Amino acid sequence: MLLRATPPHTFTHTLHATSDPQPLRVWICSQRARSVKMPSYSWLLALYLAALTGNTDGAVARESTERNCSSTPPYLPSTAVNTSLQLEELRVQMRAMNISAYIIPATDAHLSEYIAPRDARLAFMTGFTGSAGTAVVTLNKAALWTDSRYWVQAERQMDCNWELEKDVSISSVAQWLISEVPKGDEIGFDPFLFSLKTQEDYNINLESSDRSLKSITENLVDKVWKERPSVPPDSLTRLPDRVIQRTWQEKVEHIRTQMGDSPYKPTGLLLSALDETAWLFNMRGNDIPYNPFFYSYTLLTMDEIWLFLHMERVTEELKVYLNASCEGALCVQLKGYDTILDHLKNYVSRPGVKVWIGTEYTNYALYEVITPQDKLLTSSYSPVLTTKAVKDETEQQILRDAHVRDAVAVIQFLMWLEKTVPEGNQTELTAAEYVDKCRSKQKDSRGPSFGTISASGPNAALAHYSPSKETNRRLTVDEMYLVDSGGQYLDGTTDITRTVHWGKPTEMQKEAFTRVLMGNIEISRTIFPSGTRGVNMEMLGRRALWEVGLNYGHGTGHGVGNYFGVHEWPVGFQSNNIPFRAGMFTSIEPGYYKENDFGIRIEDVAVVVPVQTKYGNNYLTFDTVSLVPYDRKLIDTSLLSSEQLHFLNKYYKTIRSLVGPELDNQGLREEKDWMLRNTEPFAEIGSSASVSSSSLTLIALAVALLHNIV
Amino acid sequence: MLLRATPPHTFTHTLHATSDPQPLRVWICSQRARSVKMPSYSWLLALYLAALTGNTDGAVARESTERNCSSTPPYLPSTAVNTSLQLEELRVQMRAMNISAYIIPATDAHLSEYIAPRDARLAFMTGFTGSAGTAVVTLNKAALWTDSRYWVQAERQMDCNWELEKDVSISSVAQWLISEVPKGDEIGFDPFLFSLKTQEDYNINLESSDRSLKSITENLVDKVWKERPSVPPDSLTRLPDRVIQRTWQEKVEHIRTQMGDSPYKPTGLLLSALDETAWLFNMRGNDIPYNPFFYSYTLLTMDEIWLFLHMERVTEELKVYLNASCEGALCVQLKGYDTILDHLKNYVSRPGVKVWIGTEYTNYALYEVITPQDKLLTSSYSPVLTTKAVKDETEQQILRDAHVRDAVAVIQFLMWLEKTVPEGNQTELTAAEYVDKCRSKQKDSRGPSFGTISASGPNAALAHYSPSKETNRRLTVDEMYLVDSGGQYLDGTTDITRTVHWGKPTEMQKEAFTRVLMGNIEISRTIFPSGTRGVNMEMLGRRALWEVGLNYGHGTGHGVGNYFGVHEWPVGFQSNNIPFRAGMFTSIEPGYYKENDFGIRIEDVAVVVPVQTKYGNNYLTFDTVSLVPYDRKLIDTSLLSSEQLHFLNKYYKTIRSLVGPELDNQGLREEKDWMLRNTEPFAEIGSSASVSSSSLTLIALAVALLHNIV
Repeated sequence: MLLRATPPHTFTHTLHATSDPQPLRVWICSQRARSVKMPSYSWLLALYLAALTGNTDGAVARESTERNCSSTPPYLPSTAVNTSLQLEELRVQMRAMNISAYIIPATDAHLSEYIAPRDARLAFMTGFTGSAGTAVVTLNKAALWTDSRYWVQAERQMDCNWELEKDVSISSVAQWLISEVPKGDEIGFDPFLFSLKTQEDYNINLESSDRSLKSITENLVDKVWKERPSVPPDSLTRLPDRVIQRTWQEKVEHIRTQMGDSPYKPTGLLLSALDETAWLFNMRGNDIPYNPFFYSYTLLTMDEIWLFLHMERVTEELKVYLNASCEGALCVQLKGYDTILDHLKNYVSRPGVKVWIGTEYTNYALYEVITPQDKLLTSSYSPVLTTKAVKDETEQQILRDAHVRDAVAVIQFLMWLEKTVPEGNQTELTAAEYVDKCRSKQKDSRGPSFGTISASGPNAALAHYSPSKETNRRLTVDEMYLVDSGGQYLDGTTDITRTVHWGKPTEMQKEAFTRVLMGNIEISRTIFPSGTRGVNMEMLGRRALWEVGLNYGHGTGHGVGNYFGVHEWPVGFQSNNIPFRAGMFTSIEPGYYKENDFGIRIEDVAVVVPVQTKYGNNYLTFDTVSLVPYDRKLIDTSLLSSEQLHFLNKYYKTIRSLVGPELDNQGLREEKDWMLRNTEPFAEIGSSASVSSSSLTLIALAVALLHNIV
Repeated sequence: MLLRATPPHTFTHTLHATSDPQPLRVWICSQRARSVKMPSYSWLLALYLAALTGNTDGAVARESTERNCSSTPPYLPSTAVNTSLQLEELRVQMRAMNISAYIIPATDAHLSEYIAPRDARLAFMTGFTGSAGTAVVTLNKAALWTDSRYWVQAERQMDCNWELEKDVSISSVAQWLISEVPKGDEIGFDPFLFSLKTQEDYNINLESSDRSLKSITENLVDKVWKERPSVPPDSLTRLPDRVIQRTWQEKVEHIRTQMGDSPYKPTGLLLSALDETAWLFNMRGNDIPYNPFFYSYTLLTMDEIWLFLHMERVTEELKVYLNASCEGALCVQLKGYDTILDHLKNYVSRPGVKVWIGTEYTNYALYEVITPQDKLLTSSYSPVLTTKAVKDETEQQILRDAHVRDAVAVIQFLMWLEKTVPEGNQTELTAAEYVDKCRSKQKDSRGPSFGTISASGPNAALAHYSPSKETNRRLTVDEMYLVDSGGQYLDGTTDITRTVHWGKPTEMQKEAFTRVLMGNIEISRTIFPSGTRGVNMEMLGRRALWEVGLNYGHGTGHGVGNYFGVHEWPVGFQSNNIPFRAGMFTSIEPGYYKENDFGIRIEDVAVVVPVQTKYGNNYLTFDTVSLVPYDRKLIDTSLLSSEQLHFLNKYYKTIRSLVGPELDNQGLREEKDWMLRNTEPFAEIGSSASVSSSSLTLIALAVALLHNIV
């Protein structure tokens, strides 16, 4: 799945990259909505439906779809949400706390990339449902900051209580605050929704302005949000043994060993990211769309384990599994989710303790109680995240298996498109629906891993496009089509992008596609020492494009794993990602986007594997585990080096040997034939070195023969 | 010139990388010692000579060359320096300041990579003359930290007053301090010799240990160093107009424009690095070996210019040049070098001022007086360093010209070696001497730009080797030879490495050499968008090596420019270097080192130039300006891609067209023939794409002919 766009040629430091513009949509509408209780989210559904239908299905077909606050009276489209009441009520709360402004971020207390409906405070306050943004409310003004992907959506959804601000840097928010908040006044924020870095950035920007931040642990939006969705009542689940190699007890011991080995001698480790606790206990939940997580924190000490969660969701069986009735080193003491702050304070007050946190995923509320400084140990990522990044043998095998089944679904889907698009009845939306359906038939399917990006022609040039009724395009043989989709399976998470053309592509489209493919291949086939960083290799994904002056404005890949979020950090090609080791899985996804014309992306997931070299040890390369052929029509083999051609043919052979039997098993004969047709080997000449010698032989032969004739 | 070694596969953050193990040697002994007054440095010379001769020329020929402090009585070689007196005197000073430890770094107040003899406080205190290290003296102990390059040298030069510590991290020094300094006591340091980062690192490491740092602006070593060399009395010089495009007034206006454009509205800019002031005023000095700098600071405000230097060295002519008799916006007010701190304090006390500093080169003494915080504006590098990084048209042209003359010198040298080495009389030292001599004959020569690395066989495997009498090897046709050298010219600084073999190289040597060359070529020929960082491309220099499990443990290149230090930061391939723009010059220097066997490095300087691409604008590539052919014997052309071969032949054509006429001008006929022989084009087959089609034609032809015959 595509990462958030970055300015061309820069390498983003943003950790919580996301590109999903409507995180609630597929979650609510999907066939695989995992027993969501609809009524409690009805307000969100209404909001969503309003946004989805816009004015195209509305009563006044000709009215503008965007607000106009400078006309008299102000014009509001039917999609705009009246936010006067919630603003009024929030300001009452603000006055009571003696603050002149209140900052509302878009994340949750775990700094999650995707959030649950009950954390959609920004949407509740502003009406705007996009996934990225920051709102600030003062006693007489309100403003939303969001990036260019969402400007139109914001103008459709917000009423005239709200200004829209377009520079999303924290310094821009701070500048606005300095201009709106009187000197000496305080600006409130919920420290549970701020990372350390966010807090620091605001602090630096407000420094010496004589306005200060005030940390308020009780969220003021929640106080006025009467119909705030409750935590899903679903019971939590443990993973079945067949997908597990290391028990939670083994994982706990392994992490404790790392704590003991640290020269800084931490006594406790605080886990805040939702996938950290899910990984440690081999458990999953259902709280966040596309992400099988549950609200939780863990405080792991050398001789105790405290798991903070909504206890009513823990079954008796699970209590036995967690050994929850004792207090020993391998007993999990269950504590209420909301008691984390008190327990942490209490633990920190003990003499001689030192708490280890990963700064990238710990919120400021928890951080600020770990004082004095010598009770704190920080690293960017907790040892759980760095350990989790390297998959064990079972995890590697089942994730490969999931990709074989996923390939069957995608092959089925691509074949179906090839057949039905020329008939003229398919659209971006029907295609997106069909790919979900194909995946849902595969064993252990648990729904999509993100909202499918299904984009035809110019829509695909918007790298972060997601189809809606308003933008939906019919698929035709005259346009390129890009589909970026993935599945959750009990054994693994998948993520793949293919770009196809059902008619006659232009020369430029072929060249761009081939160069994107060359980028994908150059990364995939490169050999590098263990410990090399992705950011130091990712230019290989761009180099063939750069050669002719083309490029793309997003990242080149992200970690992915076993039934977790589709962006499984900190693995990947970004500058804040950790060095590659054998057993890590990452997407590789170069692209090219021609504005108002077409978009290309070729994304595969690959696993880092050891490789034998002539002289050295400890070298690695990638092994591609996504197993779907590329559109042959779009490949100009004359641009490929012999090494690239050879790599491609070897990959196609692997697809045949791994996906072929699975297609047979599933009795998909037509799909098998389609796969075989699309993995025919390309003509290879051999490596450039052998070419030159064979050419010389041929020349000699030709010359000899000519002499004989003459 | 080689950068400091980094752990394999990591990318160093160290800015002041250096590899020169004996910075004083060539400076003192060189023929081009720039009118150094020898007597005032006599103590250093004695020290150096002792180190140089060691026991090989000493009275007791069989004695051990290293100290043994655990024998009774302790054994000291004749090279060891008795430091009891200076330690005793330093401790008197320490007691007077009420400190229990004193830290002595190896740098100067400008955080220079090379230092002048008067700043060699570490050598004076310890006896150890290596370029890198930190000494700490407590009331009853003394310890030196230095890296593995210098351990043997330290054991030879230090007496038993000193412990040698081998983990050079600040945390290791801090650990030692915590174990040696009583709780509650203070540790003194000279803030002029600490960078912000060094101070912060010590602070973090001592935090919560109940030992604190005490900043003492008067250096305690200087107080006991009676024969401390004085500042060289030489007059400073201005650069002649023929090497200048922008007058200092234009540069000042340009920098002021950048200050005015900053949203943070700085009122003043403090320049601390010696090349900043030298660049701004188009002036040079003679204070530091190999570096044409003079002790100075500049405080540039929007309407004043204060230049801090040793005023007695400013001639009347220079005063006129600097417009030093007035106080307007384009008048340079000359102030005493030692008054910087008072003037800065005074300026900071003015209301409404804000001082911009580059944190990488500003010492802690100056930083700490810029308070409160809102009077400070920081960036890693000052706008002078980032502006200076892009050379103007004149600078580019004269730096290219300097490389043509430098190539003549190096070609002369390589030809001479080829002739004389088989006769058996050349050594690493005679070779190093000869290359200096060759350069000295070229127009505008100003001596070597660093101590030549002249290394044969296993010596070259020590990437940072520099020959001495003790280690000197005879050059033979049986060993590879590596020479890394450079010259200072009035118009430019050069830096080039060639590796040669005068006999029959092994297959492995050929393969390694060819793969190093492939790395050099792959970086040089790559096309990239303006603004790409070197660190994101430098793996191209390693990739051909990685493919067979080889690698190198140092950086891949550094900026270089017009008569400045040979490492001209912040341009280069390190992670703290700035993005590439057209007009920047950098070295490109991959290598390979086989322990106890041989070493290979191929280093060229290249300029970043715009390139026309098929679809895009604003793309760049490198144009190599070092113009000396590689050893043909070591190139296995079968490993090269057709693109690499083509690049190589084009480069050789450029050497012929640029160096040929200069060799003619200088009447060097034999050298011209040697150059022509060594730049013969290699057989090219054409690009892989055209190969395949031509091969197919040949196959068709052969088949047709066979048919005719049968």
